[in-house]
Amino acid sequence: MSERPTGHSVPAGIEGGEAPESRTAAPPPPEPSHAERCRTLVAGSTRGALATVAADPAGYPYGSVASYGLDERGNPLFFVSLMAEHTQNALRDPRASLLVTERVPEGADPLASGRVTLLGTMAPVSEDDRARARERYLAANPASSYYIDFGDFAFYRLNVESIRYVGGYGRMSWVDPERYADAEPDPLVDAAAGIIEHMNEDHADAQLLYCKYLLDRPETTAASMSAVDRYGFEMIAVSPAGRTAVRLGFPKECTTGDDVRTAMVTLVAEARARASE
Amino acid sequence: MSERPTGHSVPAGIEGGEAPESRTAAPPPPEPSHAERCRTLVAGSTRGALATVAADPAGYPYGSVASYGLDERGNPLFFVSLMAEHTQNALRDPRASLLVTERVPEGADPLASGRVTLLGTMAPVSEDDRARARERYLAANPASSYYIDFGDFAFYRLNVESIRYVGGYGRMSWVDPERYADAEPDPLVDAAAGIIEHMNEDHADAQLLYCKYLLDRPETTAASMSAVDRYGFEMIAVSPAGRTAVRLGFPKECTTGDDVRTAMVTLVAEARARASE
Repeated sequence: MSERPTGHSVPAGIEGGEAPESRTAAPPPPEPSHAERCRTLVAGSTRGALATVAADPAGYPYGSVASYGLDERGNPLFFVSLMAEHTQNALRDPRASLLVTERVPEGADPLASGRVTLLGTMAPVSEDDRARARERYLAANPASSYYIDFGDFAFYRLNVESIRYVGGYGRMSWVDPERYADAEPDPLVDAAAGIIEHMNEDHADAQLLYCKYLLDRPETTAASMSAVDRYGFEMIAVSPAGRTAVRLGFPKECTTGDDVRTAMVTLVAEARARASE
Repeated sequence: MSERPTGHSVPAGIEGGEAPESRTAAPPPPEPSHAERCRTLVAGSTRGALATVAADPAGYPYGSVASYGLDERGNPLFFVSLMAEHTQNALRDPRASLLVTERVPEGADPLASGRVTLLGTMAPVSEDDRARARERYLAANPASSYYIDFGDFAFYRLNVESIRYVGGYGRMSWVDPERYADAEPDPLVDAAAGIIEHMNEDHADAQLLYCKYLLDRPETTAASMSAVDRYGFEMIAVSPAGRTAVRLGFPKECTTGDDVRTAMVTLVAEARARASE
C-alpha cells in the first residue's frame, strides 16, 4: 500500500480550504481534497433535503426530505412517489439540489459541521439503468424493500452539475463536479464514528501524548478527536490559551479500523520515545 | 382549565390527516390541528434547510443549513452573513423556503417522522424590529451571542405565505398560513422527548394496560409511545396481527410534565379498574 495514494490527497488549501494549524517545520500531513470530503460526506448518509422548483407558489424553491442512494459517479438516486410534491415539481422543472449534512455530535456547534449542496437536474432513470439503480438504492435504503416494486414510484437521478462544500467555519469551496465524480469516498466512512467515540472514551491519554510530543504542543491539557480519514485525524487541543484544531497524519494510509488501531499504537510509541528524549 | 381548549384542537381529519385508528364507540380524542402541529414542530428546532434561488447555475434551487429563531407569528428569523450564498441569493430573489424536520428516533423510519416546509419571501428585518428579532434569535441560539453584533451579519425574516405539512405516511396537508400564525406551539414541545423516553424505559407495563383496557385491544403484547401533546399521546401497539398507531386522550389538557405524570397515574388506575370488571 502506498503511503501517499494517488488522486485523492490534494491538500485542501488548493481548493480554498484552510489546513488546521501546525507548528512543525515539516510539510503539512496529507488530507482529503474537498472533492473527496464531499464524496465521503454524501456517502455517509442516505437522507437529505431535496430542493425543487414549486408550481404554487410559482418558482419558489421547495425543500423536502428525500432518501437516496448513489450511482458510481456520486449522483444521487431517488425512489419517489409520482404523487409527491417534489416529483411533480421535477417533472415540470428539472432544476434541483440535494443538501446533505454531517451528523452533529451532541452539544457541538451545528455550523461547525460539514455539509454539501449538490446542484443539478433531475431525470428519470432509463429502463436500461433501472436494475442497477434499484440495487444501489436498496443497498443504501434496505427498509424500502417492501415498496420498491410499487407501480406509482419511480427512480430519478440528480445529475450533478455544480457542488458547494462547507466543511465548517472557514473551510468552504465550489468543488469541480468532475473531480467529485472521480473521487472515492474515504474507506473509513462507516467506521469513523465508532473510531472517534472509542478514542474519546478510552484513549484521551494517547491523544494528549500526540499533541504534546508529536505536534509540539507541550502546553496541551486535553485533546479530543473530531474527525478521522485514511490519511490521518483531527483533534481539538485544549490549552490555557484556548482551543485549536490540529491534524496528525498516519504513518501510512489506513483503510480499515484495524489499520487505524495499529497506527495509533505506533504513534503512541513514537510520542513516548520523544517524551523521554 | 377547560378540557377542550379553544382554537387549537380541531381534529386533524378536517385538514386531510388521518387520525390513528380507534375501536371505541366514543368520539376520537381531540388532537392538535395540523396548523398547531406545524407551529410545534418548527418551535421544537432551531436549524433547518433553507432553500433559495441560485444565481449560478441560474434559477436552481439552492439548499443550505440555517439556524433560526421565530417571531410571534411563527415566521423564521435568520442571522446571516452578507457574504453567504443564501444571503446573496435572497438579495437577488426573495423567494425561499425553510424545511424543518422532527428528530428521528434511533432506528425509526425517517419518512415516518414529521416535517414542515414554510414557503415565503425573505426580507431584511426593519430597524424598528431589530431589537426584538435579536432577542428572539438569541433566545433560540444562545451560542450565537459571540458574533451577534458583527457588522457583516444581518437579520432576515422569512414571511411565510404557504405551508406544506407531512406528519408521516398518510398524514399531510397544505396548512392555512393564517391558522399557522394564530396557532400556539404545544406547551409540551420541550418536555415531549423526555416524557417519551421515560415512558418507554420505565412504564412499558402501563402502556400495555392502556392499550388492553382503555383502547379495547386485549390482544396487545407490547406498546411504546411515539408522540405526546397537550391533548393526549400516541403509541405503537404491537399484537400478533401487526403494529398499529393508536391515540389515547388525557382526562384533561396537560401543559407541563407534572400534569402528564398525574394524567398517566389516573389512566393506570382507570385501566386497572376496567381490567377487574
